[in-house]
Amino acid sequence: MSPPDFDTTMQPMKTDVLIVGAGPVGLFAIFACGQLDLNCIVVDTLEQQGGQCISLYPDKPIYDIPGRRSIAASELIEELTAQAAPYRPRYLLGDCVVTISGDVKNGWSLQTQNGVVVECRAVIIAGGNGLFEPVRPTLDGLAQYEGRSVFYAVKKREEFAGKRLVIAGGGDSALDWALALSSISAKCYLVHRRPRFRAAPATTKMLDQLVASGMIEILAPGHLSGLEGADGILSGVRVRIGAGERLVEADMLLPFYGLRTELGPLAGWGLDMLDGKIVVEPGTCSTSRPGIFAIGDIAHYFGKLGLILTGFADAAHAAHAAHAFVRPEVVLNFVHSTTRGDPAAAVA
Amino acid sequence: MSPPDFDTTMQPMKTDVLIVGAGPVGLFAIFACGQLDLNCIVVDTLEQQGGQCISLYPDKPIYDIPGRRSIAASELIEELTAQAAPYRPRYLLGDCVVTISGDVKNGWSLQTQNGVVVECRAVIIAGGNGLFEPVRPTLDGLAQYEGRSVFYAVKKREEFAGKRLVIAGGGDSALDWALALSSISAKCYLVHRRPRFRAAPATTKMLDQLVASGMIEILAPGHLSGLEGADGILSGVRVRIGAGERLVEADMLLPFYGLRTELGPLAGWGLDMLDGKIVVEPGTCSTSRPGIFAIGDIAHYFGKLGLILTGFADAAHAAHAAHAFVRPEVVLNFVHSTTRGDPAAAVA
Repeated sequence: MSPPDFDTTMQPMKTDVLIVGAGPVGLFAIFACGQLDLNCIVVDTLEQQGGQCISLYPDKPIYDIPGRRSIAASELIEELTAQAAPYRPRYLLGDCVVTISGDVKNGWSLQTQNGVVVECRAVIIAGGNGLFEPVRPTLDGLAQYEGRSVFYAVKKREEFAGKRLVIAGGGDSALDWALALSSISAKCYLVHRRPRFRAAPATTKMLDQLVASGMIEILAPGHLSGLEGADGILSGVRVRIGAGERLVEADMLLPFYGLRTELGPLAGWGLDMLDGKIVVEPGTCSTSRPGIFAIGDIAHYFGKLGLILTGFADAAHAAHAAHAFVRPEVVLNFVHSTTRGDPAAAVA
Repeated sequence: MSPPDFDTTMQPMKTDVLIVGAGPVGLFAIFACGQLDLNCIVVDTLEQQGGQCISLYPDKPIYDIPGRRSIAASELIEELTAQAAPYRPRYLLGDCVVTISGDVKNGWSLQTQNGVVVECRAVIIAGGNGLFEPVRPTLDGLAQYEGRSVFYAVKKREEFAGKRLVIAGGGDSALDWALALSSISAKCYLVHRRPRFRAAPATTKMLDQLVASGMIEILAPGHLSGLEGADGILSGVRVRIGAGERLVEADMLLPFYGLRTELGPLAGWGLDMLDGKIVVEPGTCSTSRPGIFAIGDIAHYFGKLGLILTGFADAAHAAHAAHAFVRPEVVLNFVHSTTRGDPAAAVA
C-alpha cells in the first residue's frame, strides 16, 4: 500500500471503540459493544462488510453457526449487519488503520490510509487472517508503476479501453479478464508460465477464437522479466520466453497471481505476537497493550479454534472488558438480552 | 432426589462422549462432537431438551444469538436439536447422572438415577445453572411423604381428583393450581404467609367466587408447621395461623415455593470449584480431572460471561479437547464446516 497522505485539517472523529475489521466477528463486536451502550467506528480495507465471507466464499453454506443448520456466508453477513445496525455504527470502508498513538490513560488516536483521525478509549482488532494483499511479481522499479500503470484488480473496466495490456497469470482471474478486456483494449497479451491454460471447454474455445482473430496474443510459457517506462508511465513489459526475451509494447500490466494475507500496519503496533497472531488473554481478549483487544482469527490463546463462533464469544468478552476502559466509573451489571429487551426498540 | 436403585443386570451403554445437560450449550456440544466424528449420549433431568430455555422462558425472545436478530428460546432449542440430529445423539431424559468412577486411562463409568450405566472416554458437563430443585418447606419427616403425598409439581391432574389438598405458596403456581384443582378435589386449602394474594383482577375474582362457594378455603397469613400420617400416607397438615395452630385433614400437600438451582451430585465429583462453578481452562474447558470438561454457565474462567453464545464457543473448544482423549491416535486436522460439507449428507 502506498504511504498515507494525511490531510491534517480534518477534524478527528470520536468514538467509544474503534473496531478494526468488518468481517463477521467485527460486525458482532458492534452489537456486543452496543448492548453495553458503547458506540463504534469500524474500519475495513474492503469496500463492503463481510471480510472473507464476502470476498472469498459468499455463496458457500456454513454449517457450524449455532442455531443455523446451514446459512450462506453472504446471508450470515446480512444478518450480522442488520443485528448491529440499531447501534448506528459508522463504517470507514475501503480504508485501513495505519498508525496508532496515545495510551490507555489519555486514549488512543488512530490515523487511516485515507487520512481520517479517530480518537477512542478502546480498540478491538477483528482483523481475521489479515489484509488481503495481491501477490506481486518480482520486477525492478515495480512500485513506481503501481496504481498508475500496474493494477492487481479491475475496478473500472473503461480505464483499460484503447490501451495495450499485458495480463499475467494462469488462473481464472487472468483468463476471465483477458477475455473481458480484449474486446475494448487496443491489444491484449496474456503471459502464463505454463504452456496451457486449465479452463472449461467453453472458455478455451472463446480464447482460441480471440487468439485467432488477433485480439489476444498468448506468450506462454513466459515470465515477466522487466518493465520499461518512466515516471510511473509504462511503455513496455519484458517477457522471458524460453532462452530469449521479448519486449512487448504496453501501457498497462495486470498481474493476477492471487492474493495472500498479511498483518499489514498492525504488525508495527508493538503487540505481543505468536506465529503471526496477536496473543490475548482468553476471557477478556486483552492484548499486551491495555485497552487494545484482539478477537477472532487474528487472536491467539491456548486451545483457540479459528471458527466464526469462537470469534463471536471473543467479541462478547472483549466488549465487556473494553467497557472498563471506556467507562471506568460505571459498574457493569450483567443483564441477559431477554431481560434487556429489543435492541432496535431500545435505541429508537 | 431419592437414592438410586440400580438394576445391576442392565448392560452398560457405550459412547465416545457423555454430555451432562441438554440445554442449548449441551445440544451444540453434540454437533461440535459430531463434526469430529465423536458420538454422544446426553443426560438431562428434564423430560425434554432445552434446559432453562424451555423450562423457564420458552416464549421469550433472545436478541444476542449471533446472526439471529431475535429468536424465541423455544425456537432456538428446536434449531439446535435439529442441528445435532444428524449425529444421532442418544438422549436419557428425565434422568440424572449420580456417580462417576474410573479415570482418564481406563475410561469413565457413570451411573444414572434410573440405573443406566454409561461407559465413555470423555465427559462434557453442560449443566447450566445446575439442577432445578423445588424449595422445600422445613417440616419434620417430610422426605417419607415426598412423591407419595407431597408433590412439588402436578404431572397428572387426575391424581388429585377427589382428594383433600393443601396448596401452599403465594405465587402464580400456587394460585393457578388452587383454581385448577379445586374443581376436581374433595377440598382445597390454600396456605399463604401473607394476608393477601397479588394477582390479576380476573384471577382474584375467580378466587373469591371459589372461596364463597366453599371449594377453596384460604388459611392466611398461615405457615406450614407439621405433617400427620404414617408410611408416606398423609392424614393431615398442621398450619400455624397467628398464635394458634390448626390441624387440617388432608391427603396431599403441594408446596409451591419456587425453584432453586443446585449442583446436585456433580458437587461430589472432586472437581475444582469456585463460587459454585466448575473451574476450567479457557480454550479447552478442561476441569481439574483430565478427560472431564465443563462448558457454558456451569464453567468458570477469568472473564467468562454467562451468555449462551460463549457457551457455544466452550462447546467447540471442549469437543476438540475431548477428541484427544477419545481418539488419542488420530491427529485432528482442523477443517472448516464450509469445506467439510453438509453434516446431514455426511452421516446419511
